Amino acid sequence: MSIDTGSADTTRASATGQVRTGDSLEGRLLRRLLSSLGDPPIEFQFLWSGERVAPSATRALEHVRIADRRTLLGLLRDPQVRFGDGYGTGHIEVEGDLVKFMVTLFQIFNRPDDRESILSRIAGWLNRPRRNTLAGSRDNIHRHYDIGNEFYALWLGETMAYTCAYYPTAQVTLEQAQIAKMDHVCRKVRLGAGDSVVEAGCGWGSLALHMAARYGATVRAFNISKEQIDYARHQARQRGLEDRVEFIEDDYRNINGRYDVFMSVGMLEHVGRENYAQLGRLAHHSLTAEGRGLIHSIGRNRPGLLHPWIERRIFPGAYAPSLGEMMQIFEPWNLSVIDVENLRLHYALTLRHWLARYEAAVDKVRAMSFDETFVRMWRLYLAGSIAAFETGTMQLFQVAFAKHANNQIPLTREFLYAK
Amino acid sequence: MSIDTGSADTTRASATGQVRTGDSLEGRLLRRLLSSLGDPPIEFQFLWSGERVAPSATRALEHVRIADRRTLLGLLRDPQVRFGDGYGTGHIEVEGDLVKFMVTLFQIFNRPDDRESILSRIAGWLNRPRRNTLAGSRDNIHRHYDIGNEFYALWLGETMAYTCAYYPTAQVTLEQAQIAKMDHVCRKVRLGAGDSVVEAGCGWGSLALHMAARYGATVRAFNISKEQIDYARHQARQRGLEDRVEFIEDDYRNINGRYDVFMSVGMLEHVGRENYAQLGRLAHHSLTAEGRGLIHSIGRNRPGLLHPWIERRIFPGAYAPSLGEMMQIFEPWNLSVIDVENLRLHYALTLRHWLARYEAAVDKVRAMSFDETFVRMWRLYLAGSIAAFETGTMQLFQVAFAKHANNQIPLTREFLYAK
Repeated sequence: MSIDTGSADTTRASATGQVRTGDSLEGRLLRRLLSSLGDPPIEFQFLWSGERVAPSATRALEHVRIADRRTLLGLLRDPQVRFGDGYGTGHIEVEGDLVKFMVTLFQIFNRPDDRESILSRIAGWLNRPRRNTLAGSRDNIHRHYDIGNEFYALWLGETMAYTCAYYPTAQVTLEQAQIAKMDHVCRKVRLGAGDSVVEAGCGWGSLALHMAARYGATVRAFNISKEQIDYARHQARQRGLEDRVEFIEDDYRNINGRYDVFMSVGMLEHVGRENYAQLGRLAHHSLTAEGRGLIHSIGRNRPGLLHPWIERRIFPGAYAPSLGEMMQIFEPWNLSVIDVENLRLHYALTLRHWLARYEAAVDKVRAMSFDETFVRMWRLYLAGSIAAFETGTMQLFQVAFAKHANNQIPLTREFLYAK
Repeated sequence: MSIDTGSADTTRASATGQVRTGDSLEGRLLRRLLSSLGDPPIEFQFLWSGERVAPSATRALEHVRIADRRTLLGLLRDPQVRFGDGYGTGHIEVEGDLVKFMVTLFQIFNRPDDRESILSRIAGWLNRPRRNTLAGSRDNIHRHYDIGNEFYALWLGETMAYTCAYYPTAQVTLEQAQIAKMDHVCRKVRLGAGDSVVEAGCGWGSLALHMAARYGATVRAFNISKEQIDYARHQARQRGLEDRVEFIEDDYRNINGRYDVFMSVGMLEHVGRENYAQLGRLAHHSLTAEGRGLIHSIGRNRPGLLHPWIERRIFPGAYAPSLGEMMQIFEPWNLSVIDVENLRLHYALTLRHWLARYEAAVDKVRAMSFDETFVRMWRLYLAGSIAAFETGTMQLFQVAFAKHANNQIPLTREFLYAK
């Protein structure tokens, strides 16, 4: 389905301006759209007519080709969703470095002073995420996480951790950074031998196994993705940890019992705002009086929906909260937030590693009988996510908390950085 | 004005139960109040009748004497305010360790499951803080901070820092901890030579002078307390820092100009929730694109008013926000929160040092022609504050933030703990 990606000649023609510019109706409409976005430095070429549309004042730094009129009209009607769809099918092609282009795109939409208009609120309402009822969550999670463990294994690396890693320095490998992340969250909750842990949303189980193997904890780990749970149980058997790590194929809302530690890394994005107080209630009731916990989640500087293309095509039902919204988890239960760390630059690094591995393995993805649209959608999703974290459009919050009267909280955070 | 603090004999009589208990109407009313509070382990003695009221099941651990019927009736009508007032005038006396008693008291009111009732909301509305208009703020601040620099000098220590200190270990002195706090906040904003800083609410100026002297920054520091500004200017002259630190007797809302760093330590408590978005706007507009900032404030685990006695008698107009409420400063302006640290145990330590110095200097306080009610009110305020932080009733948040697109934020926080 991919279209011709063009030649150096086309680019040169653009650079010297020997082209028709913005004569047609659709060209004028696109120009108006670009103008309303502050004339971003992007030139569009219509492949059916050769017409080019570029910002009037700014020099175009990025070049996009649109294959047919129908794709352009879709883009004019719903740019956010149709750009991704058109890129997926190959009807939209971006010249050069896709990450660099996505950074340019995100910078346009990330101006600090654009207060919410009534129109954008209506759009937000129309685009609101799919609800995360018990059945809805199962369906939403199945659509993303049950694509196949082999697919994720191609680019997530050995740990199979599908969450932001922690880079003590930018130079460490993806595997080192994922293990450093596990140690970072374990230290934040001062995990010790004999501690009992409940993990809400355990992915392929690497953190649960790490907590048992390296820290001597006993862990009950919940997940509703069948493929992930099967994989995790297999790992537990192979590593001889079945007696200390129990993987439970069930919704976090069915967690019961009392624990020393409540841990949730990368699940909150799928919880849905309407369930935050309930999640906090669960954390509160799951913890002993000296209990402590950590929630690690993608977030935003202020409330807002996920990019609608991501929410529709990649992560149905997902939502990235602001820190203020995250507080709706803790405040009703008098849980005490003791430490918040924003790791957005770490997610940009993690995603760069994932994208590089994905590109290196792209022929294997194709060999798994995924079509070219799938291949391109995942490329766009990874490249766009890098841009989102690098431009400060998205954040990554680790929030450590404790029961309100727990005075065993450490005086300083120096121990997190002790060698 | 102080009443007789009783003798060992009275205590012994209580211990052996040779007393009348809870016969009178007011005794029964007090018992009902205590029962509604879950029978706290406190025994009350009415000095006019000898009657004692104690919890039925629990063993009384704390002993309170009430001088007359009028004080008791006031206490029954408005326990939160009248307890402090009665303690101040000496009509209420607490046996033994006042801090320990206040811890018991705070534990009663800090149960995690007490959701807000309609009645407590009405009470909240009636007790809402005095508004912080420009004139109102000046009056509110004058009432607390212009009591006299000599008074504060008796117990704040050399730095005259009237905010939570930072204890690298619990053993350091108050002075060391205050300087460690200044270094901690300077490191958090990565303050460097030549950086320009605007400080909103500078107290007696020690942090502003520290930033200039130790970090080579140039500082404009705002404060509306005339006594504090006079003191700070005198310090700047004495230390030869007038060319790099400008102390401005003006409201933070009149800050103008652009700076590398926005710093505010211990002012937010006086800003008022209605002004949070405006404070954020100021921080946003004061900062360069690579700007960063820090707000240090007393806070709470969830929204709620200050103790009404504190708000009326000690800090008019003050409010301690939850972390969620603090986000109303940052979110409208797309400011990125990069680090939050809860230092509540540090404030308990700081306050213990202050109270010990206060008690050691209490004769000097009296010699300044403050009456005994003043002496006792400040004792209660300091002891109660220790209890508030030790029981997790109050928090201390340091929130470090940056402009949304600032990618110069450090990858990790390890540098904060480097020797």
